[in-house]
Amino acid sequence: MKNYTSIHDIDNIHSWIEEAKALKANPLKHIDLGKHKTLGLLFFNSSLRTRLSTQKAALNLGMDPIVMNVSGDAWGIEFGDGTVMNGNTAEHIKEAAAVVSQYCDIIAVRAFPTLTDKVKDESEHVLKSFVKYASVPIVNMESATGHPLQGLTDALTISEQTKKSKPKVVLSWAPHIKSLPHAVANSFVQSMQKMDVDFVITHPEGYELNPEITGNTAINYNQEEAFKNADFVYVKNWSSYNDYGKVLNTDPNWMITNKKLGDAKFMHCLPVRRNVIVEDAVLDGENSLVIEQANNRTYAAQLVLKKILENIK
Amino acid sequence: MKNYTSIHDIDNIHSWIEEAKALKANPLKHIDLGKHKTLGLLFFNSSLRTRLSTQKAALNLGMDPIVMNVSGDAWGIEFGDGTVMNGNTAEHIKEAAAVVSQYCDIIAVRAFPTLTDKVKDESEHVLKSFVKYASVPIVNMESATGHPLQGLTDALTISEQTKKSKPKVVLSWAPHIKSLPHAVANSFVQSMQKMDVDFVITHPEGYELNPEITGNTAINYNQEEAFKNADFVYVKNWSSYNDYGKVLNTDPNWMITNKKLGDAKFMHCLPVRRNVIVEDAVLDGENSLVIEQANNRTYAAQLVLKKILENIK
Amino acid sequence: MKNYTSIHDIDNIHSWIEEAKALKANPLKHIDLGKHKTLGLLFFNSSLRTRLSTQKAALNLGMDPIVMNVSGDAWGIEFGDGTVMNGNTAEHIKEAAAVVSQYCDIIAVRAFPTLTDKVKDESEHVLKSFVKYASVPIVNMESATGHPLQGLTDALTISEQTKKSKPKVVLSWAPHIKSLPHAVANSFVQSMQKMDVDFVITHPEGYELNPEITGNTAINYNQEEAFKNADFVYVKNWSSYNDYGKVLNTDPNWMITNKKLGDAKFMHCLPVRRNVIVEDAVLDGENSLVIEQANNRTYAAQLVLKKILENIK
Repeated sequence: MKNYTSIHDIDNIHSWIEEAKALKANPLKHIDLGKHKTLGLLFFNSSLRTRLSTQKAALNLGMDPIVMNVSGDAWGIEFGDGTVMNGNTAEHIKEAAAVVSQYCDIIAVRAFPTLTDKVKDESEHVLKSFVKYASVPIVNMESATGHPLQGLTDALTISEQTKKSKPKVVLSWAPHIKSLPHAVANSFVQSMQKMDVDFVITHPEGYELNPEITGNTAINYNQEEAFKNADFVYVKNWSSYNDYGKVLNTDPNWMITNKKLGDAKFMHCLPVRRNVIVEDAVLDGENSLVIEQANNRTYAAQLVLKKILENIK
Repeated sequence: MKNYTSIHDIDNIHSWIEEAKALKANPLKHIDLGKHKTLGLLFFNSSLRTRLSTQKAALNLGMDPIVMNVSGDAWGIEFGDGTVMNGNTAEHIKEAAAVVSQYCDIIAVRAFPTLTDKVKDESEHVLKSFVKYASVPIVNMESATGHPLQGLTDALTISEQTKKSKPKVVLSWAPHIKSLPHAVANSFVQSMQKMDVDFVITHPEGYELNPEITGNTAINYNQEEAFKNADFVYVKNWSSYNDYGKVLNTDPNWMITNKKLGDAKFMHCLPVRRNVIVEDAVLDGENSLVIEQANNRTYAAQLVLKKILENIK
Repeated sequence: MKNYTSIHDIDNIHSWIEEAKALKANPLKHIDLGKHKTLGLLFFNSSLRTRLSTQKAALNLGMDPIVMNVSGDAWGIEFGDGTVMNGNTAEHIKEAAAVVSQYCDIIAVRAFPTLTDKVKDESEHVLKSFVKYASVPIVNMESATGHPLQGLTDALTISEQTKKSKPKVVLSWAPHIKSLPHAVANSFVQSMQKMDVDFVITHPEGYELNPEITGNTAINYNQEEAFKNADFVYVKNWSSYNDYGKVLNTDPNWMITNKKLGDAKFMHCLPVRRNVIVEDAVLDGENSLVIEQANNRTYAAQLVLKKILENIK
């Protein structure tokens, strides 16, 4: 594998999950694989789990992580082609990506969408520019439209936690006061589409995700119906895709409660707003998997880095 | 030892000091103890000495330090119980602390007080929330009411520098233009109360520290009297405790001078405002121990990390 | 070598270049030299290449890099002598430099000029204060008037790329909308003065660099004439030195084009504003050396750190 930019880079999710479980059982087994290799972690946006778990994953492989908050630490980066750079950006991505490639053996990038310019966001101009202009592999630490380290993590977590050969998994929208990206939801959908699960999405009308991603996945506007017999309920807010980036609905009836969940396991990528997205009782209860999901971020990242390192060698 | 949150976590300050001296004499002796273990350093506030010395201490034990400026790098953290999180905070401490525990074997936290809400500050809600919700040991890198890494450092420094079996140690308030916390003063008081020293506190009336901390320690409102025959003068500004967080006095007559000090050694945790807290001649003179105190921060932190690591194993 | 603060610290640029080439051929040869030694990287200003390449260089020598953005992470630093510190600065450089020396075996500092106060900038008060008050070696990661890691890099790059024993090297000013420092240009001039090259500087009248630095180096106000038969064209904007810090000229006719360059190699320290300093076609063409220059930053830094480490031992 050269780059890890989307769930589509996973050739066989079942074998990947088995490999991730093996790493989790023995995290330091490949401590020499990344020796004297650096992982550059470039953040255009805030990060807690991704920042820490990806560093931990790199350390488990013997790599040296180097973290940079691009906006605060370096220069404003220009992505336009042919731009006369007499404005606020001081360095072009063509140079930036090629330059960072001189110091880092792998570059991991986080760059959120604008949520105001759909065409720009869907072009994935930041991530794709790194892929295009860097001379080393690129890992997506959440881009405008995908968060494939999270999607892989979630598949691993469901595989570990399920008691059935084909569990029922529901992706549910939940209310939030701010306009949030579609990246986590998209990668979760793509990840579940590769898994042997009974998968359904539920959200209010008008909150359809990109139909090119959801494809044939069942959508049910009735949350209660969708939750029936669910084994896993994965919750996430996203802003409208059609009325791009808009918050059309903040109906608290979509908030997740223990009553709604029944025996289903609760999943969320975090951070999560308590008593807005989900009531306290769920997060504080036994059916919440959110901390184990966070734990699994390390092994998803470690697997991705391992596969890339093996390909470099 | 599970956590190091206050001077009270020191079971025997004399044996700790001896151990710290041994580490200082041979800092790399335990280089394998922390191998493949990570120390997460979480800063809610600025830091120079603590930031660098704690990293150095971790490196001396073979640990991998991971630094995060919480506010700038990640999300606004909610500490309230039962809060409906529809405001500016995006992640609850319950998740944040549990999540960071997935990636770090020890978490060190710096979180200053508000100095406007005494009850909140005295509850130590940030530090105690980490202790409560993290699943790994917590180290206090200065909280609302204590700075026990500094307190341990200062005890070590006095032990190294004293020529008497029972030296006279004075804690003196000094003027400052801003409202400063009580944490350093509190931990120094608690630290000295465990030492075999003749200890007195001097400050203007109205600047009494928390009486639950000072207890039976002598207080003298006359700085000149207090300084008589002093071997060590530890200087620190703090805002009023009774009229909580207020700057009641900026009287330059309380500034420390060589004339006042006589032969006493000068100590301060730094940063220090020259010619406000203390005149240049003191800091530039031979009786200043401030740089050696800074040096000893490494070994105080290293001892604390060592004791925690030994307890994890 | 104790400190590396200017190109003048290079005793023999020819032997340094040979050593740097040897490091580049075998970057990990001295991996034990810096073991258990820390490099503190202190940034008062933004940095991409310097930040990453200097960390990479330290890692190649087995050192532990510790990065700090001084302004954001720590306290405002006072540089004045005898100041009554009742303003915005909370820590004096006398303490800060001595304190950091307790935790770091080498300190690297980046501190840009004000470009408004010529006397202050030329005094190099930040860099020189670190040299004066630190007890460990200091490396200049770009100061008010010099960027000697860049200058050494550029000499190495020209030495690698030249096909002639005495190539013609031109330093050309190019337009920019903002007021930029003289540091890179100064160090490049000093570096070329030590090399066996035919060296000429070209810029509009009024953009003369400090004559104490340019000395006898030829200056030609006619860019076209200066470029004749050039083998290397090194491009950089700087603000006026005489009318200190002012942008007197933004004439786009000084922008670098492929037509102007002919067969000459194009060099720039980066970041570079495309289509302001230089047209896209140059950077995207085969005669651009900018990425190789960035690569060589690692080996210039590694050589400097190696020489300092050898001197510490």
